[in-house]
Amino acid sequence: MLGTASAMPVRDRNQSAQALNVHGRLFLVDCGEGAQRGMVSYGVSMQKVDSVFISHIHGDHIYGLQGLMSTLGMGGRTVPLHIYGPQNLHPHIKFFLSYNEWLPYEIVFHKVDTQFPEVLLETKSLRVTAFPLMHGVETYGYIFAEKEPQWNVHKECIEQYGLTLTEIGTLKRGEDVVREDGSVIPLEVAAYKRFSPRSYAYVSDTAVFPGEVEVLQGVTVLYHEATFLNEHVDKASARLHSTTLQVAQLAHDAGVQKLIIGHYSSRNTDHLLYQEECRSIFPETYAAEDGDVFEI
Amino acid sequence: MLGTASAMPVRDRNQSAQALNVHGRLFLVDCGEGAQRGMVSYGVSMQKVDSVFISHIHGDHIYGLQGLMSTLGMGGRTVPLHIYGPQNLHPHIKFFLSYNEWLPYEIVFHKVDTQFPEVLLETKSLRVTAFPLMHGVETYGYIFAEKEPQWNVHKECIEQYGLTLTEIGTLKRGEDVVREDGSVIPLEVAAYKRFSPRSYAYVSDTAVFPGEVEVLQGVTVLYHEATFLNEHVDKASARLHSTTLQVAQLAHDAGVQKLIIGHYSSRNTDHLLYQEECRSIFPETYAAEDGDVFEI
Repeated sequence: MLGTASAMPVRDRNQSAQALNVHGRLFLVDCGEGAQRGMVSYGVSMQKVDSVFISHIHGDHIYGLQGLMSTLGMGGRTVPLHIYGPQNLHPHIKFFLSYNEWLPYEIVFHKVDTQFPEVLLETKSLRVTAFPLMHGVETYGYIFAEKEPQWNVHKECIEQYGLTLTEIGTLKRGEDVVREDGSVIPLEVAAYKRFSPRSYAYVSDTAVFPGEVEVLQGVTVLYHEATFLNEHVDKASARLHSTTLQVAQLAHDAGVQKLIIGHYSSRNTDHLLYQEECRSIFPETYAAEDGDVFEI
Repeated sequence: MLGTASAMPVRDRNQSAQALNVHGRLFLVDCGEGAQRGMVSYGVSMQKVDSVFISHIHGDHIYGLQGLMSTLGMGGRTVPLHIYGPQNLHPHIKFFLSYNEWLPYEIVFHKVDTQFPEVLLETKSLRVTAFPLMHGVETYGYIFAEKEPQWNVHKECIEQYGLTLTEIGTLKRGEDVVREDGSVIPLEVAAYKRFSPRSYAYVSDTAVFPGEVEVLQGVTVLYHEATFLNEHVDKASARLHSTTLQVAQLAHDAGVQKLIIGHYSSRNTDHLLYQEECRSIFPETYAAEDGDVFEI
């Protein structure tokens, strides 16, 4: 958690930015002012950032981007940096490049433009999906989901059953082995998966909206903005932000395992108050502070 | 001192930015990333900033500007903000304005473009002068100098000498009163000045250069970048930055009263080492840390 403040600057928090480590691959989600100093402070290796996902072009989500792009160049980066975000982010990157011709690496902009959940990036083990939020300006949430891992065959079973290469292949495809004599070596006995697929959703900024619970259904860990305490539900509604109780109810309804909140209004930055309100509905809520690290 | 780091981000320092209070009028000098959070942290009222003076468009001196301009608008500012800087700063401001039409205040850009010390701003009590530095890109230093205050007549002298309005006017113009009988009321006896004019020079980024000592002659307090310790004099020279000893010698030769240094290389941010080296030549050196306040 590189930044947990909302739009007005406050003393003890940077503005929205998070680093997400997926099997050693590093993603940055939003990049508010101070993100690069946050990475230095909390031991996140800036050069290892692979891609940046930007929710929307409000300043508290992007004003750390120019500094980051510049510092990566000064550090001698040659690996391309991929940036995903709404179309209106593109001029910001083009403007930056217009006076930084010296940059030793390429910046590849990927436009996000969708009304429905859409896969942006897919690798052997990971799928990143974008979906639209409700915040007045074009804004996207992102879900980072591990794919089902392959089945691995227990080494001791190979010997025990005298598994042939063909039979090992059958197990790796996720099927039981059925031998000519009719005997069965069950998949669950002879093979295992290294992990159950986990997922992380980043949802900021937005009012809670119809259909949101379906998009987030079953996510392992949900980060959701909770700009306002429950008493300011009218402000939240007017400004297209969320309250503690709305978000906690959403987490409950979507059946997520853990809820992390942030983006606290500068009017009240006491994260424990926010946490307490959420926990009245959803006990597994954690109100983030800058520098917090969460395992998924 | 809102930021005392140089280009590469470090844990405990923001990048270059300073707030200068001149008789209640607030100036911002450079605006590196994190300047607005620094102002909140150190109790500097952002909305009271009158003018911003930018030295050059390297990111560590300007990447806090968009955030500041945005936050001032969100805070409901209606008073114009004046920004002084080299011509190549103008596109940055124009780009910001291109997607911030909602801004409730005016931003007035004043181009600095001079080969010699040139007065940019003059009020009843203050004169701000820009002069070119030596840093590869167009870069300016700024001197903020109080003007000579008016002479004030001691109240008790008015009665004691029975001063006429004409005679009071004479004293206020800085002249002795010579009466018809040949008697003299000396200026120094009957009148006084509220203060001796003070001045503050901001010099960053630059190599020390020919003629610099003349420009800075007699300045009260000099802030000068000292990016490198003496052992890295070759790096300083190659990158058009200054070393501790170069700057201390300059302060000595220019006869300033106090030297403040900052903009430490990320290679070594221990300000006390820098201070020690400078003090071997110029004892009145203070190595700045973020949040330091200096009286001039």
